[in-house]
Amino acid sequence: MLNFRNDYGAGCIPEILEEIKNNNNIVHTGYGLDEQCEKAKEVIHSKMPDNDVDIYFVQEGTQANIVMIRCALKSYEAVIAPDTGHIVRHETGAIEATGHKVIIVPNHDGKITPDEVQKTYESHMIDSEKCVLPKMVYISNCTELGTVYKREELEALHAKCQELGLYLIMDGDRMNTVLMSGVDYTLNDLPKWCDMFSIGGTKAGALFGEAVIVSNPELKPNFRYVLRQSAALIARGWLLGVQFRALFENDAFYKNAAHEIELAQQIQSFLHDNGYSLLIRSETNLVFPVLTKEQFEYLAEYVDFDVWEKRDDMLIIRLVTSWSTTQEEVDQLCTYLKKASELV
Amino acid sequence: MLNFRNDYGAGCIPEILEEIKNNNNIVHTGYGLDEQCEKAKEVIHSKMPDNDVDIYFVQEGTQANIVMIRCALKSYEAVIAPDTGHIVRHETGAIEATGHKVIIVPNHDGKITPDEVQKTYESHMIDSEKCVLPKMVYISNCTELGTVYKREELEALHAKCQELGLYLIMDGDRMNTVLMSGVDYTLNDLPKWCDMFSIGGTKAGALFGEAVIVSNPELKPNFRYVLRQSAALIARGWLLGVQFRALFENDAFYKNAAHEIELAQQIQSFLHDNGYSLLIRSETNLVFPVLTKEQFEYLAEYVDFDVWEKRDDMLIIRLVTSWSTTQEEVDQLCTYLKKASELV
Amino acid sequence: MLNFRNDYGAGCIPEILEEIKNNNNIVHTGYGLDEQCEKAKEVIHSKMPDNDVDIYFVQEGTQANIVMIRCALKSYEAVIAPDTGHIVRHETGAIEATGHKVIIVPNHDGKITPDEVQKTYESHMIDSEKCVLPKMVYISNCTELGTVYKREELEALHAKCQELGLYLIMDGDRMNTVLMSGVDYTLNDLPKWCDMFSIGGTKAGALFGEAVIVSNPELKPNFRYVLRQSAALIARGWLLGVQFRALFENDAFYKNAAHEIELAQQIQSFLHDNGYSLLIRSETNLVFPVLTKEQFEYLAEYVDFDVWEKRDDMLIIRLVTSWSTTQEEVDQLCTYLKKASELV
Amino acid sequence: MLNFRNDYGAGCIPEILEEIKNNNNIVHTGYGLDEQCEKAKEVIHSKMPDNDVDIYFVQEGTQANIVMIRCALKSYEAVIAPDTGHIVRHETGAIEATGHKVIIVPNHDGKITPDEVQKTYESHMIDSEKCVLPKMVYISNCTELGTVYKREELEALHAKCQELGLYLIMDGDRMNTVLMSGVDYTLNDLPKWCDMFSIGGTKAGALFGEAVIVSNPELKPNFRYVLRQSAALIARGWLLGVQFRALFENDAFYKNAAHEIELAQQIQSFLHDNGYSLLIRSETNLVFPVLTKEQFEYLAEYVDFDVWEKRDDMLIIRLVTSWSTTQEEVDQLCTYLKKASELV
Repeated sequence: MLNFRNDYGAGCIPEILEEIKNNNNIVHTGYGLDEQCEKAKEVIHSKMPDNDVDIYFVQEGTQANIVMIRCALKSYEAVIAPDTGHIVRHETGAIEATGHKVIIVPNHDGKITPDEVQKTYESHMIDSEKCVLPKMVYISNCTELGTVYKREELEALHAKCQELGLYLIMDGDRMNTVLMSGVDYTLNDLPKWCDMFSIGGTKAGALFGEAVIVSNPELKPNFRYVLRQSAALIARGWLLGVQFRALFENDAFYKNAAHEIELAQQIQSFLHDNGYSLLIRSETNLVFPVLTKEQFEYLAEYVDFDVWEKRDDMLIIRLVTSWSTTQEEVDQLCTYLKKASELV
Repeated sequence: MLNFRNDYGAGCIPEILEEIKNNNNIVHTGYGLDEQCEKAKEVIHSKMPDNDVDIYFVQEGTQANIVMIRCALKSYEAVIAPDTGHIVRHETGAIEATGHKVIIVPNHDGKITPDEVQKTYESHMIDSEKCVLPKMVYISNCTELGTVYKREELEALHAKCQELGLYLIMDGDRMNTVLMSGVDYTLNDLPKWCDMFSIGGTKAGALFGEAVIVSNPELKPNFRYVLRQSAALIARGWLLGVQFRALFENDAFYKNAAHEIELAQQIQSFLHDNGYSLLIRSETNLVFPVLTKEQFEYLAEYVDFDVWEKRDDMLIIRLVTSWSTTQEEVDQLCTYLKKASELV
Repeated sequence: MLNFRNDYGAGCIPEILEEIKNNNNIVHTGYGLDEQCEKAKEVIHSKMPDNDVDIYFVQEGTQANIVMIRCALKSYEAVIAPDTGHIVRHETGAIEATGHKVIIVPNHDGKITPDEVQKTYESHMIDSEKCVLPKMVYISNCTELGTVYKREELEALHAKCQELGLYLIMDGDRMNTVLMSGVDYTLNDLPKWCDMFSIGGTKAGALFGEAVIVSNPELKPNFRYVLRQSAALIARGWLLGVQFRALFENDAFYKNAAHEIELAQQIQSFLHDNGYSLLIRSETNLVFPVLTKEQFEYLAEYVDFDVWEKRDDMLIIRLVTSWSTTQEEVDQLCTYLKKASELV
Repeated sequence: MLNFRNDYGAGCIPEILEEIKNNNNIVHTGYGLDEQCEKAKEVIHSKMPDNDVDIYFVQEGTQANIVMIRCALKSYEAVIAPDTGHIVRHETGAIEATGHKVIIVPNHDGKITPDEVQKTYESHMIDSEKCVLPKMVYISNCTELGTVYKREELEALHAKCQELGLYLIMDGDRMNTVLMSGVDYTLNDLPKWCDMFSIGGTKAGALFGEAVIVSNPELKPNFRYVLRQSAALIARGWLLGVQFRALFENDAFYKNAAHEIELAQQIQSFLHDNGYSLLIRSETNLVFPVLTKEQFEYLAEYVDFDVWEKRDDMLIIRLVTSWSTTQEEVDQLCTYLKKASELV
């Protein structure tokens, strides 16, 4: 069975196992105050040298979203998110469980636009305290649909947020694929646009872990209190430090992304060339072909993947490449896709 | 200035002032455990004699919604509501502040249909624990658009909720207008369909207060704990008791509604006959004409009302009658509407 | 049966009923934005002319505590309260339900001392983010034991809070009794010491309602959002306005307190002179005699009161006077107390 | 510098690194639904064969407490804990952040007694809904003071909880040390007494992770929803599976504990024999000597440890052994302790 279900099914890069082994005999200070975390912060900071940021490590993605939102919002403040946003549907109400409303707006190719932010803000302010106070915009980059925010989109969104007094936070679960997708910005630009953002390790070659970057000075104080309250500090915090060091010191973080995008784009082109419709033109490691029932059934025998959506008689599936996906697996997948394309 | 802004701007019916005065010299047990509350419960219960229900009184509408939802849902359970629902936009995130997500679905004339419930339920169950667990359906009756659920609509919604294991709760903020709108059901039918519902006093002729009716036996235990935690028990709870007695003992609750519907329907017919568009055909005491900017400006000089929505160049306003609105006021309003209609 | 159970069993002062009646025919703006509320704020402000404060009205005491705490604390911040504090035991966890820990410290005659605050603060800071961050001190004045903070106690507590960066809030449920207990401070002093405080109406002669005073400028923005989210804005907000006007415009607020303290102190002296022990020397309208079982049973036949605590074979009861308690009732109570004193 | 600061400073047992490496090349189902977790559950279940339990794995200890409490309590229900309990002071208000009050009672050698439970329950029920409803008892075993519940203590506590309708949950952060401390019960007994409990991996030789055992059938449904909402499911859940397999398949879980208790008891005896006072007679891997300032300063030069408490001029420190502590380290520590004992 070929695995194109997700980018966390397989394990981590070998360097990380090596580093965990090397550090396992050393006594570390607990809860993220160790040297490995310090070094990991240094190397991450070296990727955004123009910025004065605080850096933390948490176990996983929902936790990153919880701590960013919990640290920033007052009880009556809310976060605006596109309907495709991970916090909207796939975190079991974790944000609402912290007491905050998620205001949902329509996505445009998985993204949120300044116009949508403006409209939502206005419609809430008209009724003043009858509505929650919009205070934050949440975006995913790359989006849940594999699309990527362009420089000018982020600049415009940032400008709109500044104008309206909103925080902008970015869920960077698959941030590495963004940075290697051909955009004309780097990690160094993000702190200027975002008050906080996360950098995913789990899907970038680590075993687990996300970095949380806080750039807005007013959100920095007491951040470790928020982490601790959210169960986001593990005793052996050095585990996160060594993973992020290993990802960034030799740029595995970037190289893994380049590899998986290359393979995903091969698949996407192949699909296009062979008459498949696509839900959307993805720019990263996610591909969304539209299948007939027959194609779906044929493919499901040989390939493991997720169903994204059902539409009438068609099924939209999601194919995902990861750092460990091989060219051979992609070639084999294309063979199956070819045969499936001839089924109808 | 004519007042058609809302149904709580004016005061209460005289009988209530009289009863408060009569009870003011008596020492009552505190926090709703007094004789007046007991009697009020009896007379309300007499309107639904076939049902074994618990009855409580709270101060206002958001509080009623908070206690109904807080008492029933586990941390990961959510309530489905139409996008027009009061809990969705007009309670400053009070429901989310209790930790629960409100799942928004499209309204149909202000209502939610079994189909929408089914679709939403399914789309959430497909991803199981990634999504919140839908466990409750919230409806307003009458709706925020002045429409009323028909018997068969409630039966169908109830059946769907039973099928899917969902609670059905009804926000009865303007329940009195429902019952006098010509429906073929009475208060006595509601406990069969709804696990909990509220009966509004504030907009029915009282100074303040809502009754909360709990019919589902599994939701009855410890309800006063929920009330107390929600600051929903005032020391002089007898104030609520006397108000609901006064509303129900001589059927002022019903008579007030009949009066305000009669007047609102006069306005609605007049609008229709004079070439105005309506946002919707209301069945209660809310009327939603669509005005040009010129009409709006003219009318706003003489009449106090709310703007409901702006659409391109048109303004949809809301006109509301109350128990204290007079025929003279309606006639005068119609005169203004007539003139306004000639402006374009 | 004589009623000495509480100070809210009986009704309100007649002026309030009169004013409600007078206002009942007027159309008011909703949710506390009416003229009556404005005038009430003016007259309350006239009692603290040296201060720039915001004033709001809520329905009852737990609500006042909820809004003061919810508006000020971040998710990981906590409020320090004496073990006798109302928020500690008698609000069904309403504060914790907003997500905040209440840190309990021993009371000294119902009060909290700067020393206890210092010790608690230090013990929490030693472990930094493992503990919640103490950010607020909650006191009741008068206390639940009927004692009153002296000027120098409040000054010292204020100074300590300033030193440690803590907000000081005061639950003024029975504030009127404080101000008439012989203290050398007035309402005008409180905003200098407290960041927020409440002024109780319910136990001061109103039907219901508490004023919430916000003096710290950083806590002022968006306060109505907190009110609305907490279901603390009733549609007919003018009801609260007229009550506080009636309490303050002719100083009924103060006169009622003087009356009930005078009577309570008569009772306390009588108890003392007749050989009863007292739990504490109360300075307000609460009296706490210690009774034997026989005395208790005798008294309970003729007088309605609360049991405060059981200690071995003794019962501590609470006797409360209110604005409507008469000299005759006190004399009659003393007759019973006299007889009871001879029982042992 | 000798390390006796805690039992998580050093790494995990080698078998775990080996197993992670072995599994790193395999594609696993995500979020704890993989084969490794299944096998880990089987082997843990084999240690409690008489019980029908559900088993889950979470990242760390606060998370385990959050999910156990969040899954069981209604909004107005509270958990009783001894003042030494981890949830009381060392989780940054994480439990209150889920909306629930922690009711604090005095500890007896770190434990809670049925008497304290009874007293607290009664004192809360007397005021009924004014207080939170006690619904759960939280204990740590071993306690934060290194003491262990005896069989008869657990039976009595269980019986009391059953009598009063309370859940009993056990924080088993250092459960392995309990089971090897000489008690006459095993894991197989715990589900009969506890509705839920955790088994710590972090301090038992794993890198991270706790098992959560649910034995009460009414708490079993939808548990994964609670996990997901609490950010307690990592993508590579197999990491937790392999760790618990490695701990239990060859009984490393037990052997590590035997080793660390043996060493800790050596230290404790040595302290006793050399004239040191002890805060308490620990039965596990925690030792609490009382030092003079001079002793403290001397020792702090050579040994890394935590300060537990300051009392007047004395300092109580905490010495902790772990699976990786060696006999040589203990011998060296004793040399230092010997010298320190001669300082006064």
